[in-house]
Amino acid sequence: MNDDLKILAQRVRDAIPLTRHLAFQYLDFDGQALTLSAPLEPNHNDKNTFFAGSQAALVTLAGWSLTTLIAERAGHPSDVVAVDSQLRYTQPLSGALQLHASADHETLHRFLERLADKGRARLAVTVTGRDEQGVTVCEYQGQFLARQYPAP
Amino acid sequence: MNDDLKILAQRVRDAIPLTRHLAFQYLDFDGQALTLSAPLEPNHNDKNTFFAGSQAALVTLAGWSLTTLIAERAGHPSDVVAVDSQLRYTQPLSGALQLHASADHETLHRFLERLADKGRARLAVTVTGRDEQGVTVCEYQGQFLARQYPAP
Repeated sequence: MNDDLKILAQRVRDAIPLTRHLAFQYLDFDGQALTLSAPLEPNHNDKNTFFAGSQAALVTLAGWSLTTLIAERAGHPSDVVAVDSQLRYTQPLSGALQLHASADHETLHRFLERLADKGRARLAVTVTGRDEQGVTVCEYQGQFLARQYPAP
Repeated sequence: MNDDLKILAQRVRDAIPLTRHLAFQYLDFDGQALTLSAPLEPNHNDKNTFFAGSQAALVTLAGWSLTTLIAERAGHPSDVVAVDSQLRYTQPLSGALQLHASADHETLHRFLERLADKGRARLAVTVTGRDEQGVTVCEYQGQFLARQYPAP
């Protein structure tokens, strides 16, 4: 795992108490896409499958994290907030959740251009949730607003 | 608080570990609408406002709970799962979250008719999140599928 992810994971766990109970782990960030995972055990529901509310929290965290990392890596560290989201649950999940968060190339390009220019911009993020066999269990789209921190 | 809510709160906290960390409380269920609340403290983010992921988990719990309660009160206790959802964050929230979950009268009527008839039905639930002054902070719509438990 790269240093950006180690630092962000610590920052998230320190600042957002609920995330400690989600037991998420960042796996990889390649500059465009972020992967993370969370185990079933702290996130199970009454049917011993993955709680829909845990999935909703984790995809939100994934989208927020991707937007934060992309802005930081481009040299525009920003305060990021969720604007809106759509989430579809396609399969019950009886194991760990694997999340892949990304934004398409053109969207990313416009986001960074606008963030550099205006100091604020929205990024549309897609997050796909899969089980450990690669079967899609949920699909999420969310918009996140980044506002560049004032220069120190 | 009525007994339905006390029993459901205990069931939820026992069966879904994440809900203990959300520190939610059911407030009232009048047969059509459910109100619940959650404090800021365990749900804050890095900006000391309410974490978008906590809000997403709580609105999901509200929709699931309303569907469960409505099916039970109509004499069709059901297994309930989330199908899809849309969530819009309209204001940052720097205090407790108040949620009001409801389904319109006609929707409710069709849901119960179909559940009685087919043993399964979907309910479209609207959840509005407000701060303690009554200002709307988020708006959620979710569909939940109820499947009646087999007769014992």
